[in-house]
Amino acid sequence: MTGGTGFQSRHLAVVGLGLMGGSLARALRSHAAVITGVEANPESREYALAQGIVDHATDDLRAGVSEADTVILCAPVRIIQTMLEKRIGSYLRSNTLLIDIGSTKRDICEAMGKLPVGIHAIGGHPMTGKEVSGVAASDGALYRGRPFVLCPTRRTLPATRLRALSLVAALEAVPFEMEAQRHDHLVAAISHLPYILSAALVATVDKQGKSDPQVWELAAGGFRDMSRLAGQDVQMMSDIMSTNTQAVATLLALFRVQLAMLEAMLVSRDDQQLADFLRPAREARLEWIQKYENGAKNGK
Amino acid sequence: MTGGTGFQSRHLAVVGLGLMGGSLARALRSHAAVITGVEANPESREYALAQGIVDHATDDLRAGVSEADTVILCAPVRIIQTMLEKRIGSYLRSNTLLIDIGSTKRDICEAMGKLPVGIHAIGGHPMTGKEVSGVAASDGALYRGRPFVLCPTRRTLPATRLRALSLVAALEAVPFEMEAQRHDHLVAAISHLPYILSAALVATVDKQGKSDPQVWELAAGGFRDMSRLAGQDVQMMSDIMSTNTQAVATLLALFRVQLAMLEAMLVSRDDQQLADFLRPAREARLEWIQKYENGAKNGK
Repeated sequence: MTGGTGFQSRHLAVVGLGLMGGSLARALRSHAAVITGVEANPESREYALAQGIVDHATDDLRAGVSEADTVILCAPVRIIQTMLEKRIGSYLRSNTLLIDIGSTKRDICEAMGKLPVGIHAIGGHPMTGKEVSGVAASDGALYRGRPFVLCPTRRTLPATRLRALSLVAALEAVPFEMEAQRHDHLVAAISHLPYILSAALVATVDKQGKSDPQVWELAAGGFRDMSRLAGQDVQMMSDIMSTNTQAVATLLALFRVQLAMLEAMLVSRDDQQLADFLRPAREARLEWIQKYENGAKNGK
Repeated sequence: MTGGTGFQSRHLAVVGLGLMGGSLARALRSHAAVITGVEANPESREYALAQGIVDHATDDLRAGVSEADTVILCAPVRIIQTMLEKRIGSYLRSNTLLIDIGSTKRDICEAMGKLPVGIHAIGGHPMTGKEVSGVAASDGALYRGRPFVLCPTRRTLPATRLRALSLVAALEAVPFEMEAQRHDHLVAAISHLPYILSAALVATVDKQGKSDPQVWELAAGGFRDMSRLAGQDVQMMSDIMSTNTQAVATLLALFRVQLAMLEAMLVSRDDQQLADFLRPAREARLEWIQKYENGAKNGK
């Protein structure tokens, strides 16, 4: 599934110099003759220039991408979508590789499929991140060993796939190729559903806290882990979920079935059934975390 | 709320030499002239003796507790309950302080309230722990700065409360005194509900994994945190929940309301309402984690 490590760019444009875009630019530094960063925030531009993360920085999308042979869109999903639908098609040279890192892929790949012929677009979603945001937190190793999903549009050519795979290889990420719809269904399960559960849990405890504030003083490590995702940026998460409503609703329906089964076993005090439910979940978790942490240890 | 630091015991018995009991014995080492450990596992007994965590070790409950002036029950909730109901009352000397560390308090405090007059019993629940179990992982600082809930029985005397508070102070833990029923309601919110959500989430993803195993390969940090509790010991957790069914069912009902509201906002694409729901949850989480981590930093 790998595509060689031969990624080279004459002129790479990174649109959005935050944590993700800044880390991409750092990781691709030695693979690109020139890197231009497109970023609205002047401080981020200055920082990226001062650190040598980019060679040029501009807040003008057209100027930033018009000379590039490779363009990576590193913005929130809805902004990527707007760029694709409204503007970027007319700014790009023919033969440009256009890739994004938005968290949902169906709408973006659909919009990519309508770009002018000659623009070689493919959807991307790296499964990585950090607690902190911003270009100052960027890290050339952020993508190393982490999954990088590639989703073809209805027009993605084999040559585009191979160029994108070589870019993923240059990041030392692990490529996964799949249809956008399948991607969105999978991330609904492992990313959006967990966020919703975390937010609903915190809202529940918050309601309790209104009548008994000591609930916050007793909360410990279990609650810490289960509430972390609820602390994510609200705008970012609601944008992501609003571009994946159907898959999220499907996963919520599946989750409710599991929750209802658990509750029935608890309330009916059926200890044997309860153990038969909890044990496979425990085993699945232990098996996964072992692989996950081994992967992390091996830089995989 | 503190009770001084003057805890002293002529003879302390710790029933159950696991992580929690071993850590208690270590923390109270300088406050007790003699410490006896009661433990069925011969390896744990040998380890505790070899490390000087206890002075004596036995697998005989009667022999272990009959000379003690302070007895701490460090076993799973259902075993504590059985000990209280079946045996321990007749083994203890008059004037003994009896405390436990079981995760739910209503049933235990009820059983404690039926012990012979002269036994000074009070329920306890320290909100601390570690990923690993067993006496070899025990740590005299495990309780330091962590909440330690004390729940009176219907017969707990003021003097018993004060002795228990001095024990909590000797552990350098933070005491919280409350009714058993209120305790059980609070831990249902911050501990049992989170566990159930984690297990139901893993069960949901596991179902997905049956048809599309790549879901496991893409799962990352968000899923790691949200699935951790599902990896806890099944017997321990089902015992805990089975002694707290009513509060758990109440919290599940409250949680379902929050989840249904979130889902309605998502599916109806009401972004404003969605943000109005998610923002207070985010703020509550950020406010809590700041206090929690400051507490952890200050050894509080």
